Amino acid sequence: MNSYNIAVIPGDGVGVEVTEATLKVLLAAAEKFGFNLAPTQYEWGCEYYVEHGEMMPADGLSQLKKSDAIYLGAVGWPEKVCDSVSLHGLLLPIRKQFDQFVNMRPHRLLTGTSGPLKKTKFDILCIRENTEGEYSGAGGRVHVGNPHEVAVETSVFTRHGVERLLRFGFEQARQRSGKLASITKSNAQKYSMVFWDEITEELSAEYPDVTVERYHVDAAAARMITHPESFDVIVASNLFGDILSDIGAAIQGGLGFAASANINPSRELPSMFEPVHGSAPDIAGLGKANPVAAVWSGAMMLEHLGETKAAQAIMAALNDVLASPDNCTPDMGGKATTSEVAEAIVKAI
Amino acid sequence: MNSYNIAVIPGDGVGVEVTEATLKVLLAAAEKFGFNLAPTQYEWGCEYYVEHGEMMPADGLSQLKKSDAIYLGAVGWPEKVCDSVSLHGLLLPIRKQFDQFVNMRPHRLLTGTSGPLKKTKFDILCIRENTEGEYSGAGGRVHVGNPHEVAVETSVFTRHGVERLLRFGFEQARQRSGKLASITKSNAQKYSMVFWDEITEELSAEYPDVTVERYHVDAAAARMITHPESFDVIVASNLFGDILSDIGAAIQGGLGFAASANINPSRELPSMFEPVHGSAPDIAGLGKANPVAAVWSGAMMLEHLGETKAAQAIMAALNDVLASPDNCTPDMGGKATTSEVAEAIVKAI
Ligand SMILES: CC(C)[C@H](C(=O)O)[C@@H](O)C(=O)O
Ligand SMILES: CC(C)[C@H](C(=O)O)[C@@H](O)C(=O)O
Repeated sequence: MNSYNIAVIPGDGVGVEVTEATLKVLLAAAEKFGFNLAPTQYEWGCEYYVEHGEMMPADGLSQLKKSDAIYLGAVGWPEKVCDSVSLHGLLLPIRKQFDQFVNMRPHRLLTGTSGPLKKTKFDILCIRENTEGEYSGAGGRVHVGNPHEVAVETSVFTRHGVERLLRFGFEQARQRSGKLASITKSNAQKYSMVFWDEITEELSAEYPDVTVERYHVDAAAARMITHPESFDVIVASNLFGDILSDIGAAIQGGLGFAASANINPSRELPSMFEPVHGSAPDIAGLGKANPVAAVWSGAMMLEHLGETKAAQAIMAALNDVLASPDNCTPDMGGKATTSEVAEAIVKAI
Repeated sequence: MNSYNIAVIPGDGVGVEVTEATLKVLLAAAEKFGFNLAPTQYEWGCEYYVEHGEMMPADGLSQLKKSDAIYLGAVGWPEKVCDSVSLHGLLLPIRKQFDQFVNMRPHRLLTGTSGPLKKTKFDILCIRENTEGEYSGAGGRVHVGNPHEVAVETSVFTRHGVERLLRFGFEQARQRSGKLASITKSNAQKYSMVFWDEITEELSAEYPDVTVERYHVDAAAARMITHPESFDVIVASNLFGDILSDIGAAIQGGLGFAASANINPSRELPSMFEPVHGSAPDIAGLGKANPVAAVWSGAMMLEHLGETKAAQAIMAALNDVLASPDNCTPDMGGKATTSEVAEAIVKAI
């Protein structure tokens, strides 16, 4: 029997509830499809910070390193720890240190859900660079607090980083419709984004079967709203992918439906799976959080581990379950609690 | 009789058509409301570049400087001149050199138009920093063309630049609903965006009557789609404002409806008015371009010049005219040409 060690970081706020819900579903799927999941919980996050002055222990990353995959609920609680500290202390270092350079986010409507758009037919896979670019953390401030103060923040793009991400995108496009949309802002950012465009063009010669479309990020954002059906695979930088995948989430009906995988395709280091939503302190602990994004992220984890049938069964169960208003959380206009939805998914598997 | 010198740059592609349409409307409004508009045309743009190797003459900016306002159609024609050259040669220098630090973009549905969202009630004023930030043009590349190549692009934020923009936003919020949404990404960009947040907080003490909400750009992008009615005045950096105002355009029904004003509030140097859309080479010269955004931008120009009644009359005419399917261009599902719509607006004034 295959067995997988999963490092589980419930994190902050609703992260705790949706992680609990997801674990129920994943364990049920493991039982049904005959493999073993061994979760180890790590109680890291903003509470931990308040006690210890850091988001995770100094050897946190090496503790996680041994796992086959990492599952994360949500990080952040601005009233306790400012976001720029909490994210740079846990989520972002995991993505960067484990070289999870692909952040993959699927955007489509599940059966029974409906988004804010009149149009309902779209199936977008957003592939975002996850280790460099606008999130490099390079910068500083001079003349602090005086009228001449200046803050600089430098985006760093390496050929290594851009090329491997684009290559992953081309491969995905090849497996889907053969259409790849590359997002830049090269009309305004003439160093970083022109560089990205050049590498896209070079690589496209190696993938003659893939049609590349180029959009500026502003136009792409608008087009995801007016013509979402026109996109298939999207490749974008760390920041642009962040923004576009939140637009993807919005047209899916909200962050309660947006799943994500932070992948190191080499598999030498663990990948991490997390819903796109944050910790939502305002509804934390009330059982109101929609667990769909979290469960979907769990299905992506099983898929990554090679348990494709179990992943498919979870996705089928999600589609079944949401068709009934009884299984809808408040954000979907229903009254079900987080754990009731999880129970329904478990039953459907 | 008041008289205004207007520098008119039709620019590229559909810029030419929509500018012609707008001038007709503006001249009709001038006649009706008893003031004089003296337009001077400047044939600058990508054609000019092909002949002269530059987007405008070396003394272009000093030629424009004498005008009371600048009206611009659209710039860019990627097949002739790459975007990073054309924009840095005309549009962006005008914004920066004339210190047009406010880019103001209204987003609401005109009578008779309908956007891609199920929700139709929103009235957003997007105020974007227009001279620095992510568009600073500071950066470079090393190891060009080899596997270790690195490109860097530095966002530069000055207290001077951020503070004056935010102050303008606070003033606008005060005149509207008293609600200001400040957009950053301080969870990932800990120098530039944390700086922006700090200045926002400082200023909010001076504006106790204005309620400030803070959103990360990804969440704001999603929220403009799921809850557009929850925004009133938005203040954002150059890049974030660019993206959010394209989302604003999308929910209005497309770029054919998005007007903009690049304002130097000191009035020591001319401000510039332009539709948000680009040159749309694919439909250039066919009379298919929607002139609404261009005409609306023209109305913003008259408002800026102090001809408020004329501006209001144009907006009322726009609302009237679009209610009839006969006055709709192809993007609105109609068959009217650019100049037919202009004629209809002129009649309605
Ligand atoms: C929390 C934040 C740093 C993060 C990001 O921007 O990457 C989040 O928005 C996401 O999309 O996973
Ligand atoms: C053409 C481009 C440089 C410009 C910008 O990004 O500012 C445009 O998108 C706009 O919004 O006016």
